This record gives sequence, structure tokens and C-alpha cells, in this order.
Amino acid sequence: MRALEERIRREGLILSDTVLKVDSFLNHQVDTALALEIGQEFKRIFAGKPITKVLTIEASGIQFAMATGIALDVPFIYAKKKKAVTLAEQVYTAPVHSFTRQETYQVSISQKYLGPDDNVLIVDDFLATGAALVGLVNIVRESGATLSGVGCVIEKGFQEGRGLLEEMGVEVHSLARITKMSPGEIHFAEADSPAAIKEKV
Amino acid sequence: MRALEERIRREGLILSDTVLKVDSFLNHQVDTALALEIGQEFKRIFAGKPITKVLTIEASGIQFAMATGIALDVPFIYAKKKKAVTLAEQVYTAPVHSFTRQETYQVSISQKYLGPDDNVLIVDDFLATGAALVGLVNIVRESGATLSGVGCVIEKGFQEGRGLLEEMGVEVHSLARITKMSPGEIHFAEADSPAAIKEKV
Repeated sequence: MRALEERIRREGLILSDTVLKVDSFLNHQVDTALALEIGQEFKRIFAGKPITKVLTIEASGIQFAMATGIALDVPFIYAKKKKAVTLAEQVYTAPVHSFTRQETYQVSISQKYLGPDDNVLIVDDFLATGAALVGLVNIVRESGATLSGVGCVIEKGFQEGRGLLEEMGVEVHSLARITKMSPGEIHFAEADSPAAIKEKV
Repeated sequence: MRALEERIRREGLILSDTVLKVDSFLNHQVDTALALEIGQEFKRIFAGKPITKVLTIEASGIQFAMATGIALDVPFIYAKKKKAVTLAEQVYTAPVHSFTRQETYQVSISQKYLGPDDNVLIVDDFLATGAALVGLVNIVRESGATLSGVGCVIEKGFQEGRGLLEEMGVEVHSLARITKMSPGEIHFAEADSPAAIKEKV
């Protein structure tokens, strides 16, 4: 997605070879118009799939699940990061290890909102280690719902997340796929390039 | 907001005199069409205020800040509940005590995204004790921005939140204002009734 890549080049802060900050427009302050365009782009990419629900994880996935839900005219669900006090009923859970925070937490979804009649598109802001997304895929499978795929706004293509998801047989699409970065320099893969990433020249 | 009150009557689960679950349509599974209507309603209520940014707190405020940002065509910011690893720059912070979890956490916002040129509308899903909202109001004041008001989707009118905010001179509007509830029974205040709550008959 060209507009997104240009915005990342202009406003993204590359703090190291692995840390990219996009909190001026994606995940702290949010450009609502850009978020809506991101939703439309996921609708275009997953066109033809009979998606009934968008699924994400709190907190930074919510604005993109909302935008995608608006584009597809379906509800979205956000998984909670720990069992909340008012979540008394039966829940699907999966453990997720956060490499950033070096801790393992539980993600959970009420069983009332996901079942065999659902066709799910998982959406998140970043695809890096894939830990949270693998947890969500396992939850979708446990629920008996059909998984149409995973859509990520930004992919760190040099980390293992895509490989883990593709090994599980999941279709993965990212709107901006970074092949390499370091302070002052960022490279994106060609749009819709196959798993073997081809860099833009 | 009549459609919201009816939805709460139909789908809300009243677990006790103080706990209302609305996670089938507002804060776990989200009805995106209803969320967009909520954004339009806040736009209507705060019409004429030169709002430049919507502010909320992760996670359950995000969908309503997004909807309000869409309606007003402005960005939104969500405060983080603890200082994140990638938030290296200067932040505004405020301590918030959670009565549900019996713990105090820090909310923080990057100083880059809020300043004297901003006119802020704070939006959240629930107004109950008001703890988180008081923290956000203090942050807006510290930043030098103008505060246009606070918009909440559901207000537990029998708790102290509104009183605390009004004592601070803040204009508060809620879309569904509960005066009393218990399992099987719920009462809403008349729309736009003054601080002394008048119940519907």
C-alpha cells in the first residue's frame, strides 16, 4: 500500500534494526482517514471470502479491526489480554509470549462470539514474531470457525512471524512489508511478492 | 440515545447493582454500525466546538474515539496504561486507581501529540468512578490544550464519576445514563436532564 509506505518513510522512527515507531499516525495518535483506507485495502485483498467477523487483540489492533469491520459491514471482536472480572462465562484462551516485555500472558475470547458458523479475518497492526497471531489462529481453530486469513498493517519481514503462520497453512497479507531497516534506512518488499521476498530497487 | 438504551435493555447483562456487561456489542464484540452512530451522536452533541483531537484510554475507548474521530474528521489519541518500551520521548502521565482491579497504574501520552493549539474531546465507554477520566482531564490541562468536554457511552449515574468531573468544571455528556439497576431491572435518566437526575417513568 503505497500511501502507507510513504507515510512510514516520512514519519516512522527507526530506533534500531528491529524497532520501528509509528505512533504519530498508527498506534498512539491515529490518523482516522488512513485507518479507514487500511480497512478498505483489507476488504479489497480478501474480496470474495464470506467473512462474518474480524478478530484482533487489544489494544493496537482495535482501530484496524474497526476500520475493516466498517469496510466489510461486519462486527469485530478484540481478544482480551487477561481474563477480565466481568468475563464470567466460558472463554477460549491461548498463551502468548511477549518478546518485548519478556512475559507470557493469556489471550481470551468469549465462546459466545465465535463458532462454526463464523468466517474470520484476523487483523493486527504488526506482524513480527507472530506470537499473538499464532495464539489467535489457534483460538479460531478451537472454535470451529473458518479462517479466511491474516491481514497485518506492517510486517517485519526479517522476523519469523510470517513463516510460523504459513507453516500453519494460513494466508497472510501485509500492507507494508519491511525487508530490512536500520536508523535512517528502510526497505520494503514489492507488493504481492511471494514468500521469497523481493526487495524494491 | 434511544437505540443504545434499547440495545442495553435487550442485550446487556446486569450481574449486580453495579456490574453491567455489554460485551456482545460494545466492548468485546463490537457492532461497528452502532459504534459509528455513537460517533455521530458525539459530533451532534459537541457541535460548534473547534475540536482538533479526540482523546481516550486503551483499550475499550478506542472504538468510540475512532468513530468520533471519523465523524469529526480529526485524529484520535489513546493513552497507554503503562509506559511502553518504544515510548522513549517525553510523556504526560497521571496515576489512575482501578477499583475493579484494586491497583494503581500510570496513564501516559506522548507530549508530541498534545499541546496548547489543541482542542480536545475526551471519549470513553463507561463513566463510573471517573478515575481514568479525571486522569485524562489532568493530562489535557497539563498540556495546555483546551478541553471541550467528556463524552461517555454509558454512565453509571449512581456512582461518583460525573460529580468529580463537574467539580473540575468539565462538561459531561453520556449517551445512556443509568440511574439504577439490579439483575432484571434497569432505569435510564431522561436525555439531557441536568445534574439532578430525573428518571424516566
